[in-house]
Order: sequence, then C-alpha cells, then structure tokens
Amino acid sequence: MLHRPRTIPFPPFWLVPDIVVFLIQFIRSLFPAFSKRSRERETERVSEDMESEPTRVMVAVNESTLKGYPHASISSKKAFEWTLKKIVRSNTSGFKLLLLHVQVQDEDGFDDMDSIYASPDDFRQMRERNKAKGLHLLEFFVNKCHEIGVGCEAWIRKGDPTEVICHEVRRVRPDFLVVGSRGLGPFQKVFVGTVSEFCVKHAECPVITIKRSAEESPQDPADD
Amino acid sequence: MLHRPRTIPFPPFWLVPDIVVFLIQFIRSLFPAFSKRSRERETERVSEDMESEPTRVMVAVNESTLKGYPHASISSKKAFEWTLKKIVRSNTSGFKLLLLHVQVQDEDGFDDMDSIYASPDDFRQMRERNKAKGLHLLEFFVNKCHEIGVGCEAWIRKGDPTEVICHEVRRVRPDFLVVGSRGLGPFQKVFVGTVSEFCVKHAECPVITIKRSAEESPQDPADD
Repeated sequence: MLHRPRTIPFPPFWLVPDIVVFLIQFIRSLFPAFSKRSRERETERVSEDMESEPTRVMVAVNESTLKGYPHASISSKKAFEWTLKKIVRSNTSGFKLLLLHVQVQDEDGFDDMDSIYASPDDFRQMRERNKAKGLHLLEFFVNKCHEIGVGCEAWIRKGDPTEVICHEVRRVRPDFLVVGSRGLGPFQKVFVGTVSEFCVKHAECPVITIKRSAEESPQDPADD
Repeated sequence: MLHRPRTIPFPPFWLVPDIVVFLIQFIRSLFPAFSKRSRERETERVSEDMESEPTRVMVAVNESTLKGYPHASISSKKAFEWTLKKIVRSNTSGFKLLLLHVQVQDEDGFDDMDSIYASPDDFRQMRERNKAKGLHLLEFFVNKCHEIGVGCEAWIRKGDPTEVICHEVRRVRPDFLVVGSRGLGPFQKVFVGTVSEFCVKHAECPVITIKRSAEESPQDPADD
C-alpha cells in the first residue's frame, strides 16, 4: 500500500508575510550601499570617527644650547607655539600633541665633570639626574598644553636625535611631525648638522619644519 | 585803587572728587599694562584677533598626468583631502584654503597639435581654452570647500611650477604650504623632477609634503 502525502500548500499561507520581510531584508543586506538609510548611517559613523579620533601631532623638543636645562630651545618653543596658534587654534579637542625629547648620549657626562664616580650606583644616579632634567623640560610643554586644554603625551628617549625621532615616528605613527629649525646657512650646517632636514627626508610621516624668525635668533645662529 | 582778589580756595572744594577721578584715570592711561582691567581687555582683543583671522593654508594643485584636465592628480587630491581631514577638521571657520594651480608653459600647445594657428587671435583663443581647462580643475577643489563650508580662494598662474609656487608664497604670505608628492625613488627623481623638494628648500614659509599611499600609486610611479 502506498502512503499518499497530505497536500499542504508550500509555503504555508500564514508564513507568507514573514518570508517576504525576510527576503527583503536579505536582499538589502546583500547591497548595503544601495540602501539609502544604511548609507546615511555609514557616513554618520565615519564623521563620528573623524571627530572622536584627534589628529596626533608629534613635536620634537630639545633644551636650549645657551641656557641649558630646563629651558627649551628657541626653535622648539617656536615650533610648539606655532602648532598651537596656527593648527590647533580653538579646536583643542581635535588634536593631541605627542611631545618627544631626545637626550643626546654623548653629552651625558658634561654637566657632571666635577662629580666623582666610585660605584655603578653613581652612574645610575647621574643618569637619573639627567632624566629628571629632561622631565623638567617636558613639564614646561605639558603645562602649556594643560592651560589651553589640549591633550598631550610626553616622553624621553636617549640616543641620536635624528635616528630616534624617525624610530619613534615608526613606532607611534603620528599624523604628522613638527620640528623646529635654526634656519642655518649651508656653511654652518656642515659643522652643526640639522635634525630637521634629516627628518624631512627619512621620517615615515609628513613633516613640517618651523624656522626661528630672524629677531629670535641669537648672535651666533648655531646657538639655540 | 588796588583790586583785592577774592580769596577762593584752589582747587574749589566741590571739584575735588572730579579731579581725583580724573587724575586716577590719567595715571591709568599712562600705564595701560599695569591696569588689570585694560590688560584683560587687551588679551580679549588678541584672542579675538586670533579667532577672527583664519590660518591661511596654500595648497598647490595640478592636473592628472594620466587622465588630463579636468581631473586632479592623485597626489594633489591626496594633499587637499589630508589638509581637510587632519588640519581643518570641524574647525571650518578657523582656516582659509588658498588653491594655486600652475600651468606649465611648455605644454601649452600639446593638446592643440591638430589646430591651425593663422592669426594672433587663434593663439589668444588657445590660451583662453587652456585657462578654461585650469578653471575646471580648480572648480573641483572650490566645490569641495563650499560643501564643507571652509573659505577658499583659487587662482591660476603660468610658468615653471617650482618658481611660480615660491613666488606666490612670497606674494601671498600663507601660514604654510601643502604640496603633494608622488614619493619617487632617487633614480626616478632624476628624470621626473620633484616640485615638493624644491618647495621644501626654497619656499619662504613652512612646507608640508603629503605622499601618495602605495595603493593609490599607478603602475608607473611617475604617473599621477
């Protein structure tokens, strides 16, 4: 004997509205760009992202060659102030400053010519003293940022400024880098070396060089 | 007979308060920096000035070498968009874009190889046609600025891009200059020449170079 299957309509009539809604949603999900509503939502999300993530500006700062720690060099102060005045302006929530100070290794011992080093601890203390001096320098910039209300991060690295700055750019990935420049002539550059030119050539992000103005330069332009 | 003057006190007692007030105001006016109120007014004025005068950003734009007019080159489009996204952000009233397009003189005739020049008028027409093409290019950038609501000015100059850009920087005095770069290697540079490097060295204002990303570069990196 053969089983005759019951004839029920396919699809069952009470499921038809659900199936239609499901199909519409399924087709919509295949073409998100065609659905006007989802496209609007997408652009909203993008613009929100743009607003929520501030532009990250790395500023390389160093100490004054004339006055020494904790005074900032004329050119790095100028670069910092230029960034605030011309780029950040009143949009303090739109930017974050990344303040990097590179301490030159070779000069470590110069301020401590009179000290006596008797143990490894003495050297450690000397290094800590130097770091403290660098922190005082950074304090100046961080305080200014706080006054204005712009977010910032500051840190110290040791080594050759040119290489360290480029290395930190690769690590931190700022949107761009601001470096001060003494604006030396070609003859002076041979003896002094310019960090800014090296960064413009080798840093893996856009670089903007801010020169000191003529009236800000000391008698010997190599001083800063 | 001698006239005896009436003895009136000097100063008359009813004028004493007025004289005291006048003297205080007079002394105050001599030392505006010492008066706290006027100093506050001064800083208010300075910050208003800072807010009212937007940062003037010059952006050098050129046509695509691949697609020709009115299409913008990949690198100048990138430089323009970067400026809006990373610098201007939502602070549209704080910036003004100065869009400069330099038309290269030597290439003037190339698109008109089939044309016949019979009179000085023909040459004038040809030059006007070229200017119209340049205007179409600028239209693209100006429209984008209007969409976003950032102020802009756009104009065309003829000549060698490197020299003209530096000349216009001297004339217009922007706060900084943005130039796009194809990011060519040292070997390719010899044959193509880079406008951006020349500007970084010779323009009398800070310059920021924006490189194309690798995925945006066409097969031949000299194309743009």
